[in-house]
Amino acid sequence: MKIDVLTLFPDMFKGVFESSILKRAQEIGAFQYRLIDFRHYTDDKHNKVDDYPYGGGAGMVLKPQPIFDAVDDVKSQTESTPRVVLLCPQGETFTQQKAEELAEEDHLILICGHYEGYDERIREQLVTDEISIGDYVLTGGELGAMVITDSVVRLQPQVLGNQESATKDSFSTRLLEHPHYTRPNDFRGLKVPEVLTSGNHQKIEEWRIYESLKRTYERRPDLLESANLSEQESKMLEEIKANHVETHG
Amino acid sequence: MKIDVLTLFPDMFKGVFESSILKRAQEIGAFQYRLIDFRHYTDDKHNKVDDYPYGGGAGMVLKPQPIFDAVDDVKSQTESTPRVVLLCPQGETFTQQKAEELAEEDHLILICGHYEGYDERIREQLVTDEISIGDYVLTGGELGAMVITDSVVRLQPQVLGNQESATKDSFSTRLLEHPHYTRPNDFRGLKVPEVLTSGNHQKIEEWRIYESLKRTYERRPDLLESANLSEQESKMLEEIKANHVETHG
Repeated sequence: MKIDVLTLFPDMFKGVFESSILKRAQEIGAFQYRLIDFRHYTDDKHNKVDDYPYGGGAGMVLKPQPIFDAVDDVKSQTESTPRVVLLCPQGETFTQQKAEELAEEDHLILICGHYEGYDERIREQLVTDEISIGDYVLTGGELGAMVITDSVVRLQPQVLGNQESATKDSFSTRLLEHPHYTRPNDFRGLKVPEVLTSGNHQKIEEWRIYESLKRTYERRPDLLESANLSEQESKMLEEIKANHVETHG
Repeated sequence: MKIDVLTLFPDMFKGVFESSILKRAQEIGAFQYRLIDFRHYTDDKHNKVDDYPYGGGAGMVLKPQPIFDAVDDVKSQTESTPRVVLLCPQGETFTQQKAEELAEEDHLILICGHYEGYDERIREQLVTDEISIGDYVLTGGELGAMVITDSVVRLQPQVLGNQESATKDSFSTRLLEHPHYTRPNDFRGLKVPEVLTSGNHQKIEEWRIYESLKRTYERRPDLLESANLSEQESKMLEEIKANHVETHG
């Protein structure tokens, strides 16, 4: 998978893109990236990429020309039809489903603004997707581009080793994970639940499903709405709800 | 504000923490950080920080000892009572409200896992907050720690220059922003809406409020539920809804 990032701050990315899974993905040929400073594309003689907003007001707005020209240039170098993703607070909220969708693509272009708004014509004519990674204010789109890159590259074949891929991640299973414990059994007086050291695998599995459902019910009941529960899980959930009413009122 | 990040991948952070607003915040004394590799705290003779899960199963689990000891060490060096934030998919979903709450603190400790689960005792006994930056699977908590850091540091006094602070950010006003336009008026045949070049400031302001409400209604109607609309805005929203029914069914 190829990812081209359009940014005014290319130096922000190296530490993340050259570590851990993203590094390994490059080594096995599953991920290539370029960091493209779109300031190099401006036709402004002072190298500006922004300008005052029509209609007045505070803040500056990213001009259409440098970003259109940078995207055109990237597209002219490839036979693929890249998805063009704008990182912005107005975008669709990023989810694991969206990551899975983008992971199917051969080529993504991620556009990062910084401080400022984008000229609306970028949004209307140039991009295929607008994405926000969450309901909080960040200085720019760079962290969002890193989040998208990490989440889609780790879904490429062969990128995750056995250890990581075997883990049942939250959001890919649609439920929050059950609690985990490792040694020591007694840490500062805090003990591991007895069932986990019982050697009874059926009981352990049941405990894990129950705790996963309980945690999801208590913390993120919204996830249960779209979860595809088995008959056993549905029965457990009823039990959890009944206990919860007893305990909490 | 002091932020200590506990991570096994300290090299991931420099590019982000030494750029842009975070760099400026350090220069004016509003932000200090340390990257603490908690592997240095393990008492395991092979330097391991993880171990097999009790009860069996794939994947490894981060041991309590290195993380407890690292947090104890950080706390022993300060008279403040730091908030201890665990980045994890099971956490509360991060929002601008949470950023504003954390921004009031003097000192945060952010704990980043990588690939693996945390021993439950870390969650139960050591941390004050569990945070997830969104419903997607990432390789570790590092990007989450960067997101939290950016969002809270930019809220510190004097960190944002006039240009940025004057912008009405989405999520701080609880509505999505209206469209922005800058020069040229005609870009590849795409023109700026006439109202913005009319010079009629009242009309421009009304257009902006209307477009902000319309975009929020179309893309993120959930945000309108908690928005505190003025009488004028409520009336406009009724109009938008009526038009929408006419146009869409």
